[in-house]
Amino acid sequence: MGGDGGVEMTLPACVEALRQDPDLGLMLIGNERCMQDGLKHVPEALLARISIIHTKDAVFDDDKPAQVLRKGRQSSMFKAIELVKDGKAQAMVSAGNTGALLLTGRHLLKTLPGIRKPAIVATLPGTSRQTFLLDVGANPECDGPQLFEFAVMGMVLAEALEGQPVSVGLLNIGAELHKGTAAVQEAAALMMDSPALDYAGFIEANELFEGAADVVVCDGFVGNVIIKSSAGVANVVKKLLRPKQEDMPPVSMQVDVNLPCISLASNDCSEEAISLRLSSQINPQRFNGASLLGLQGSVIKSHGNATSEGFFYAIQQAIHEVDNAIPQLIADRVANIMQGRPAPVLG
Amino acid sequence: MGGDGGVEMTLPACVEALRQDPDLGLMLIGNERCMQDGLKHVPEALLARISIIHTKDAVFDDDKPAQVLRKGRQSSMFKAIELVKDGKAQAMVSAGNTGALLLTGRHLLKTLPGIRKPAIVATLPGTSRQTFLLDVGANPECDGPQLFEFAVMGMVLAEALEGQPVSVGLLNIGAELHKGTAAVQEAAALMMDSPALDYAGFIEANELFEGAADVVVCDGFVGNVIIKSSAGVANVVKKLLRPKQEDMPPVSMQVDVNLPCISLASNDCSEEAISLRLSSQINPQRFNGASLLGLQGSVIKSHGNATSEGFFYAIQQAIHEVDNAIPQLIADRVANIMQGRPAPVLG
Repeated sequence: MGGDGGVEMTLPACVEALRQDPDLGLMLIGNERCMQDGLKHVPEALLARISIIHTKDAVFDDDKPAQVLRKGRQSSMFKAIELVKDGKAQAMVSAGNTGALLLTGRHLLKTLPGIRKPAIVATLPGTSRQTFLLDVGANPECDGPQLFEFAVMGMVLAEALEGQPVSVGLLNIGAELHKGTAAVQEAAALMMDSPALDYAGFIEANELFEGAADVVVCDGFVGNVIIKSSAGVANVVKKLLRPKQEDMPPVSMQVDVNLPCISLASNDCSEEAISLRLSSQINPQRFNGASLLGLQGSVIKSHGNATSEGFFYAIQQAIHEVDNAIPQLIADRVANIMQGRPAPVLG
Repeated sequence: MGGDGGVEMTLPACVEALRQDPDLGLMLIGNERCMQDGLKHVPEALLARISIIHTKDAVFDDDKPAQVLRKGRQSSMFKAIELVKDGKAQAMVSAGNTGALLLTGRHLLKTLPGIRKPAIVATLPGTSRQTFLLDVGANPECDGPQLFEFAVMGMVLAEALEGQPVSVGLLNIGAELHKGTAAVQEAAALMMDSPALDYAGFIEANELFEGAADVVVCDGFVGNVIIKSSAGVANVVKKLLRPKQEDMPPVSMQVDVNLPCISLASNDCSEEAISLRLSSQINPQRFNGASLLGLQGSVIKSHGNATSEGFFYAIQQAIHEVDNAIPQLIADRVANIMQGRPAPVLG
C-alpha cells in the first residue's frame, strides 16, 4: 500500500523491478481496487509474474501498536509478513509504519537465537565505498551487548553482500578511548575482545563517508539522526545547484526509474552533469531499502516518503538478501561468535 | 596555541579579525617564541592592538582531565579563561581540547545559577535561515530537565543574536508524540508546559536545514553526530564537484581569509560559481565557533582542525557574544523562567 506515497509510488517500482529481473515474482498485498488503475497498462508478460492478495485494511502512520495488532491479518503489512513466515514469500518490502513493521515482524517471525532485538541497517554512500550503518531507528536506546549484537549482524550482512572480509567500527564523538556514553564504552570493550570482529575502533560521524569502516554500529536514535541529517544536507545542496528552479520538485523525483545508471566517471562539467553526479551519489533514494536484521526472515523497510525510484532500490535490497540467504547466514555466525562470550545481562 | 593547526592557523585569523574590526583588541596567550614568526610581517597599527601573554605550556588533545588541572595556570587555556574570570578579557577563543575547555571553564568561571552544566551551541546553515543547535558535545548523556535548560539558554542566545523572538524545537526521530527516548519524552513535557518558550515540537534531523525551528535541543552525543555527519556529506559533495582535482586539499582551505564575502545571490552557473556558492553555504568553516553556554563568562570553542578562515569566524562569534552580553542575558532570563518550574531531580 506504499506508506505516504500509496500504490502510485509502489506499482511503477514493482513493474520496473520485474522488467529488470526475469527471475523475480511479486505478490502485491493490499486493496485490489486501489491497484487496478496502476496495473492497467502493464504488459501481459510482466503481469504473469504478479499475484495480488487482497486485504481490506492497511496500517497507517499514526496507528498505535495496539491498533496494529488489533487489525491483525486484515492489514496488508501483517499478511505480507505472514507470507514470509509461511515460506510463501522469500522476503517482504514495506514503506509503512516502522514501529508496526518491527512489532509485527518480531511477533510473527521472532528474532534469531542470540539476538534480542532486530536492528535496521542502512547503506551510506561514500567517496570510495559504501558503509553499512546500524541501528538506524529500531532501538532508540541500546546497551553495550546490544551494540555488540548489531556489530555481528552488520558484519555478516556486509561480508555476504561485499564478498570479502569487512571491518566494523563503533560510532563515537571522538577518537580518544575515554570518550562516549557508558553503552559505547561497554560495546567497545566487547568488540575489542571479540576475535570474530575486525574492529576498526571509534568512528566519528564525518568519517562515515570516507570508508573508515565497512560497518558502523550505533543506537537507533543516533543512526536515525545520521541518515536524516545527511539527507537534509543533500537537499540543501540540490537547492543550491538549482538556483533558478526553486519551485520545481526535488531532483530525485525527476530521475526516471528507467534510467538509474548514471556514469560517475563522467568528465562532463556542465551544471546538469554535476547535478546528475550528485544526485546519483548522495541521492537518498538510491540508498533506500533498509534490512530489519535479526529476524527469522527477510523484511525490508522503505522510507515512508520514498519515490518510485527509491522503492525500486528497496526491492533490489530484498533480492540481494534472498540471494545471499542473509537471515540463515546471521543465525549460523551468531551461534559461533556468541559462544565465546558471556551471556548478556538483560536490561 | 591553536589545537591541531597551531599558531600558523590562529595568527592569520587574528590579524584578519583586527583588520576588519578597529575596536577589537586581542590578547594572545601561549608560547611567545612560537608566535614571533607569524607576527613578523604584521603592520604596526595592528600589532598595537595585540598583547602577548607568555605561557610555557599548552593543553594537548590527548591530555586527560587530571593532567589538565595539574598543568594549571602554566597552560595557555587555563590562563586565557582566568583572564575572563578576572575581567581582563571579555571572552576567550580556543581550538583546543574540548573536554579540558569544559573542565577548566566550569572550574574557573562556574555555571550560571539554575544551570547545572554548560552546553556547546553550534549554528547550522539552512536554505532560509540559520538554526542554533545545542548541545553539540559537552554532555553525551542528558536527562529531560537538562535538555530543558539547553532550550532556555539557546532561546536567549538566538533572540539576542537574531533580534527577534525565536521558536525552540526538540530533536527526535519522528513527529509522533510517543517517539524517542525517556529523556526526550520528559523534555517534551517540560518544554510544552513552559509559557516562556515558543515550542515548535519534535524536529527531525532532516528538517534542521529547512528552518523548522530557530533553536533545536538534543544531547551532546546526538548534536555532535549531526554536525559531523553534515560536514561529512559536505565534503563528499566538494569532492564530487572537483572530479579532476582530487589530489588537491579540500576547497575550504583554498578560500582566502581576506575574501570571506561570497555573493549567494549570484546567477553565475559556472562550476566555479556553484562550488563557491556551496562552499560558502555548507562550508563548516563558516559556521565554526561554538559558544559554551551556561558559564559565567564567554568561552568560544573553535573546531580542533579549523582553518584560519574557520578560526576567524570563531573570533567573530566571540565578538557577537560580548556585544550582546550573552552570559548576563541568560542569567537574567533563566532566573525568571526557572521560577515557575519545579526543581529538577538530580540524577
